[in-house]
Amino acid sequence: MTIKDIARRASVSVSTVSRVLNNHPDVSEDVRAKVLAVVQEAHYVPNSSARDLVRPQSDAIGLVVRGVGNPFFTGVIHAIEDAIGQAGYTMVLHQISSREDEIRAGAELARSKRLRGLILLGGCFDYTQEQVAILNVPFVCCTYTNSFGNLQSGDYSSVTIDDQHEAFQAVQMLIERGHRKIAILLDSTADRSISQLRYVGYCKALESAGLTLDPELVAETGTFDMAASYIGTRKLMERRQDFTAVFAIADAMAVAAIRALHDGGRRVPEDCSVIAIDGIELSAYTIPALTTLVQPQEKLGERSVSILVDMIEGRAGNRHLQVDTSPRNGDSVRPIA
Amino acid sequence: MTIKDIARRASVSVSTVSRVLNNHPDVSEDVRAKVLAVVQEAHYVPNSSARDLVRPQSDAIGLVVRGVGNPFFTGVIHAIEDAIGQAGYTMVLHQISSREDEIRAGAELARSKRLRGLILLGGCFDYTQEQVAILNVPFVCCTYTNSFGNLQSGDYSSVTIDDQHEAFQAVQMLIERGHRKIAILLDSTADRSISQLRYVGYCKALESAGLTLDPELVAETGTFDMAASYIGTRKLMERRQDFTAVFAIADAMAVAAIRALHDGGRRVPEDCSVIAIDGIELSAYTIPALTTLVQPQEKLGERSVSILVDMIEGRAGNRHLQVDTSPRNGDSVRPIA
Repeated sequence: MTIKDIARRASVSVSTVSRVLNNHPDVSEDVRAKVLAVVQEAHYVPNSSARDLVRPQSDAIGLVVRGVGNPFFTGVIHAIEDAIGQAGYTMVLHQISSREDEIRAGAELARSKRLRGLILLGGCFDYTQEQVAILNVPFVCCTYTNSFGNLQSGDYSSVTIDDQHEAFQAVQMLIERGHRKIAILLDSTADRSISQLRYVGYCKALESAGLTLDPELVAETGTFDMAASYIGTRKLMERRQDFTAVFAIADAMAVAAIRALHDGGRRVPEDCSVIAIDGIELSAYTIPALTTLVQPQEKLGERSVSILVDMIEGRAGNRHLQVDTSPRNGDSVRPIA
Repeated sequence: MTIKDIARRASVSVSTVSRVLNNHPDVSEDVRAKVLAVVQEAHYVPNSSARDLVRPQSDAIGLVVRGVGNPFFTGVIHAIEDAIGQAGYTMVLHQISSREDEIRAGAELARSKRLRGLILLGGCFDYTQEQVAILNVPFVCCTYTNSFGNLQSGDYSSVTIDDQHEAFQAVQMLIERGHRKIAILLDSTADRSISQLRYVGYCKALESAGLTLDPELVAETGTFDMAASYIGTRKLMERRQDFTAVFAIADAMAVAAIRALHDGGRRVPEDCSVIAIDGIELSAYTIPALTTLVQPQEKLGERSVSILVDMIEGRAGNRHLQVDTSPRNGDSVRPIA
């Protein structure tokens, strides 16, 4: 079934069918209805490669998601999809693994789909200006910034929590509840990414309370894996018995840590408190429920879209927005004397 | 930067650049290297819409994932990606929400990307032959079958667990451990999908042990939500106090059920056993760890690809493969007298 067959069946010209499929206004409602009826009846799917070539500009916004299966991204993706639709655009989703290069993937998508703009959900914190030069459309980094790269503020947009500050807040919640020996469970202290930013927040919170940083209480796992987090916590317990609280930089890591503490004979929160940042659904149902700082998934998605659409429609240039977390009080933190 | 600029910089013709970019064999290695050097230096990304039109056949296999954020799909997607690469093809991933139509999305992707074949990860169990007629490439249903539709076995391929049989196994594990009053937590007994198949397995296991089906022990939630599963379990507890075990049809539902039992004063497994089907990573770290029948994520992905590639390369027609689960013994089931 080709566009010619559709034209023949509907008794109109090929260019009329093309105008209907591309939503041109210069077609009468009668003709439009007739063509669409034939299209529907024939289960005709337009070849969008061909269509994209003749169409001067698409209405597509690309979403490149880096890291398959990050449970935290689910709500963000839904919010982005809804907001793009409400703004009158179409979302093209492309998911890549965390081994792949989101800038390259975004550049290819932008050209092949003639995108108007791009949202990158998850990515590296250390882009160079040379790297992003291949992007020929405005883009928004959603959930991360260029803290370790050389982009200027006007080179890109971002919507994110303030990782350093939120880590500071989480550790301060523990300090306010009497904790002094606070361990941290993280990927790496120097990953030029999220772990490093949250580690700096941890250090600053200790410092502002006059507490000394104790390197033995820093448990580096090398990944965000639950298995590695479990082992990292067990090793921490072999090294030290005197900590009364753990700050895990992600919910899934905290769930594995609670289990490791439990298996090592320390109950949470009676013998050790645990706090995290993220707010995934599942950690609200564990026993104990995890106390965590919830990232506003909907807001992260919505605001990324509105900043991008403002740029596409010429209302504003690159902008950077920081959103706040909100504490979700579970049962994993208790005050101590 | 266009293909003409690349040709000028490399001092070759446009058609030579095109042959290099499309991996045609009739280009000398010297010329190929020269062109690729210019392409790389210029950060040139070919416009694949244009390229796809002149290329007679792509090497692309599409993967349509239905349901954003299903934690169980993560491992399957990775396995599919690896297997497609190893077979010498390129994966094009397209993710849709569970409100969308995976057949329509697959048909559009197949045409716009000139796909050789399609894997549908997650989808409806009740396709009609008219519905799938718009797919112009071979396709494999991964993790589901057409149990409630009118497709013939030769109309499509599938790789899946035997939902009914695995549910039978899970319930039988409880029966063998002395349980007689066994509740089921599920989406719906008649959803023409996974819930219904697993419900039939539950009924058959009870029947084969001479136990009577008790409608009050059937907790329908209407969704796979954790919040709905929590409420469904609390309602079940209000209705009945005498059940000693719960079969939840998915891991996330089981985690919410354990929490609901706990909040209602019943410890797992001391006062009530819980078993599920899925085997997500997180449920291995909850307290208690969930006892569950693990779906082989890698095998589901790998076999879907090999069946599809056999069809693409003309070695075989449509096939159906059932894979087995393996029990993961957690701490959520105990034998009773």
